[in-house]
Amino acid sequence: MKFNVLLLALVLVGQFVNAQGINRGKMDPQTTEVWEPIPPKVNIVDGVPSDAIVLFDGQNLDSWVSTNSGDATWDIIGDAMQVKPQTGGIKTKESFGDCQLHIEWTSPTVIKGEGQGRGNSGIFLMSKYELQVLDSYESRTYSNGQASGIYKQTAPLVNACLPPGEWQTYDIIFKAPIFNDKGVRTHAATITVLHNGVVTQHNTEIWGTTEYMGLPQNNAHGDLPIMLQDHGDLVKYRNIWVRKL
Amino acid sequence: MKFNVLLLALVLVGQFVNAQGINRGKMDPQTTEVWEPIPPKVNIVDGVPSDAIVLFDGQNLDSWVSTNSGDATWDIIGDAMQVKPQTGGIKTKESFGDCQLHIEWTSPTVIKGEGQGRGNSGIFLMSKYELQVLDSYESRTYSNGQASGIYKQTAPLVNACLPPGEWQTYDIIFKAPIFNDKGVRTHAATITVLHNGVVTQHNTEIWGTTEYMGLPQNNAHGDLPIMLQDHGDLVKYRNIWVRKL
Amino acid sequence: MKFNVLLLALVLVGQFVNAQGINRGKMDPQTTEVWEPIPPKVNIVDGVPSDAIVLFDGQNLDSWVSTNSGDATWDIIGDAMQVKPQTGGIKTKESFGDCQLHIEWTSPTVIKGEGQGRGNSGIFLMSKYELQVLDSYESRTYSNGQASGIYKQTAPLVNACLPPGEWQTYDIIFKAPIFNDKGVRTHAATITVLHNGVVTQHNTEIWGTTEYMGLPQNNAHGDLPIMLQDHGDLVKYRNIWVRKL
Amino acid sequence: MKFNVLLLALVLVGQFVNAQGINRGKMDPQTTEVWEPIPPKVNIVDGVPSDAIVLFDGQNLDSWVSTNSGDATWDIIGDAMQVKPQTGGIKTKESFGDCQLHIEWTSPTVIKGEGQGRGNSGIFLMSKYELQVLDSYESRTYSNGQASGIYKQTAPLVNACLPPGEWQTYDIIFKAPIFNDKGVRTHAATITVLHNGVVTQHNTEIWGTTEYMGLPQNNAHGDLPIMLQDHGDLVKYRNIWVRKL
Repeated sequence: MKFNVLLLALVLVGQFVNAQGINRGKMDPQTTEVWEPIPPKVNIVDGVPSDAIVLFDGQNLDSWVSTNSGDATWDIIGDAMQVKPQTGGIKTKESFGDCQLHIEWTSPTVIKGEGQGRGNSGIFLMSKYELQVLDSYESRTYSNGQASGIYKQTAPLVNACLPPGEWQTYDIIFKAPIFNDKGVRTHAATITVLHNGVVTQHNTEIWGTTEYMGLPQNNAHGDLPIMLQDHGDLVKYRNIWVRKL
Repeated sequence: MKFNVLLLALVLVGQFVNAQGINRGKMDPQTTEVWEPIPPKVNIVDGVPSDAIVLFDGQNLDSWVSTNSGDATWDIIGDAMQVKPQTGGIKTKESFGDCQLHIEWTSPTVIKGEGQGRGNSGIFLMSKYELQVLDSYESRTYSNGQASGIYKQTAPLVNACLPPGEWQTYDIIFKAPIFNDKGVRTHAATITVLHNGVVTQHNTEIWGTTEYMGLPQNNAHGDLPIMLQDHGDLVKYRNIWVRKL
Repeated sequence: MKFNVLLLALVLVGQFVNAQGINRGKMDPQTTEVWEPIPPKVNIVDGVPSDAIVLFDGQNLDSWVSTNSGDATWDIIGDAMQVKPQTGGIKTKESFGDCQLHIEWTSPTVIKGEGQGRGNSGIFLMSKYELQVLDSYESRTYSNGQASGIYKQTAPLVNACLPPGEWQTYDIIFKAPIFNDKGVRTHAATITVLHNGVVTQHNTEIWGTTEYMGLPQNNAHGDLPIMLQDHGDLVKYRNIWVRKL
Repeated sequence: MKFNVLLLALVLVGQFVNAQGINRGKMDPQTTEVWEPIPPKVNIVDGVPSDAIVLFDGQNLDSWVSTNSGDATWDIIGDAMQVKPQTGGIKTKESFGDCQLHIEWTSPTVIKGEGQGRGNSGIFLMSKYELQVLDSYESRTYSNGQASGIYKQTAPLVNACLPPGEWQTYDIIFKAPIFNDKGVRTHAATITVLHNGVVTQHNTEIWGTTEYMGLPQNNAHGDLPIMLQDHGDLVKYRNIWVRKL
């Protein structure tokens, strides 16, 4: 009877020992359950996660300031904001590091110029790392300068651009670079981008700042605003939200 | 005059040399343009990228076979397929490695059971690495066993589950593990998941196979089918496409 | 002549423009030079880098305390320290995160026991992540529990153990896990190990704490002491230094 | 008594169930043991691992050919080989991908020139990715061009150079880039370097080829020879071995 009880106990915990007394991989299935911590609940209302900070919902530019100085003065047209050329970029009042950023954009239907001259703007994570915004629909420029490219670094895996006038989405997962107390970068920034639902950057390591001229730089910094570029073209943005990761 | 021309030439190429004759970072902006290769164009029709392999569009299960043997016999209901309990899982005829996978699922509105007993299924990348499918809407189970979890490994960052009956999306970016010719894993598999548009796994390293009992295993293998699990619950799937990366 | 000078200037800066006026990759070689910051100079005296913190040089245990309480009381024998069984482990007074750790160890020549019973000790980075120390020379135990293994996680690539009594080296490069302000681990710890000059772990992701029983844990923490384990065997250590990275 | 036996059995397997009947992490310690595969045994004879391919042991250049054409004709002086200026670099007959490379070098004691002009050579992994060899002892050049730098990319963490004439070691762990069948790089190359025992590169991502002029390139390729550069200076190498990883 003692034996039976022992056997019962062993069976109960899913435990079997082989002839050499060595157990190799069998276990109580409960032992690989992890119950804590509990992932926080996120509700999704009209496509916006409940833990997101809404940066622009079509109402106003209250979350933004000009990169020159003072208020953001880009135009609000319908549910979108539009670059106001020559007024400078706009940046969030709040600073961000690791984040998920959802943003929608469209390039002007009145096509002017070629390559970099067509519907050019940009999303600067931490005000330093540019994910290119450009009308790259049936328009050729350098590969690492087209839409969904990490500017002057890494071309997108594919060109998923929609025609001018159509709304396009970027779903961005960004990890900020980390610097130690000596100012040495110990972890590079990385970025994943889905452009209109298609992966165009996948955990791409960002080499440093995305410079127009010269090599990427890597000076230590903390969290910084998200910046949208005024490149002189009438690019529109809408439905912008960010989740801190 | 010679001087002027030299100066002009230098200015033209954006070139400035400091007092020590050392140039530190100024350059012709064209020199950091990369023109080749050209990212392939992808069109998006009804949300499906043109380079995707459609695994299920509501018509039939021609891309699938049963994990038992023979044809896949899950039910087609409307534009969805539904698990047929006790018939076994289904897996793609084609094998995949690195990929982007889009898949939609919904759990039964007739709620039975708790925790793992509620709307349980699973998506097995390479038939080995399970992204959990489960009704985790206001239902508690172990964190690394809930929807969007890498089963018995890594809990999702958040619980982005929708209520039973609502269609939910997984947008998955998966990198296959790489093994050398000695069978040693040199690169772990990684996975990024957006669940209903919210990042729940971000370049998560997959430790090995996702076992019900015991530790992850890492035996060398090549590309393998994607598998959907029959866990006895009436989970439905629809709109499944995959892009090889 | 003007033309010649222009040509000269362009040649001087290594600049060539093709027929379409598009420059693709040629540039002044100086433009990819990065002069700042200047890597700090490290001198190496008797094999010890000048920026290292010497944790043990054979003189005393002043950099250590007992994991029980009070002073470290392990024995000093020659230029080595030896585990004093049943007195508990020892840990550094100072805390460390990212670091390079050099440590030498030897297992007892009087062999007793088998497997885990033979010359067992361990180096716990951050007091939590164990790099196994064990006499694995012609002695079999579980692969993820042998010398150079991340205990109960990842086996070493090879068994580079020397016979008992010979001094062995570990050159360890460790990156600490990073947690965000919600306590979520955003970067896993990684470890690279050269065992007697042979790479045994290469940027291995550490899953979490190295538990004797159960799954790895990942509760947020900051820098912590390095700990050496008392497993009851007369393992000796010497020549221990660490560099903060 | 029945209860006692049950308790005993549970204790034997290290199994405890809490009041809710939920087991959270306790388990038989054997269940996290991984016994297979068994890491292969490596013996170390005179510092050389038994699984290494010796590329140069002071005897001859039989493992090398000239990068121009024909036999390698660098001079053998004592146990070292010395660059023969103007004859071109030398490369291994065998090709390599992932590897651990040990190599020793010394720069000429007759110092001539400054910066890049002093004891310049280089180790090209896969004939494409240069780890700089340079007399950087109390000699200034651009940071990403000094000894232990990934040429024109990433400066070393520290300057661990020894004076001219002293033998210096590089212990290199290199992972080759991986390209998919479309020629897209899916995994960047990485490199870890210990220079005279001090970590100078730690899992550094290599952006692409290390160009003298222009940006890194990333065209698909397989395994390739290791190449040593003739930069016109009388740099010597000795004790070169490589282990395929």
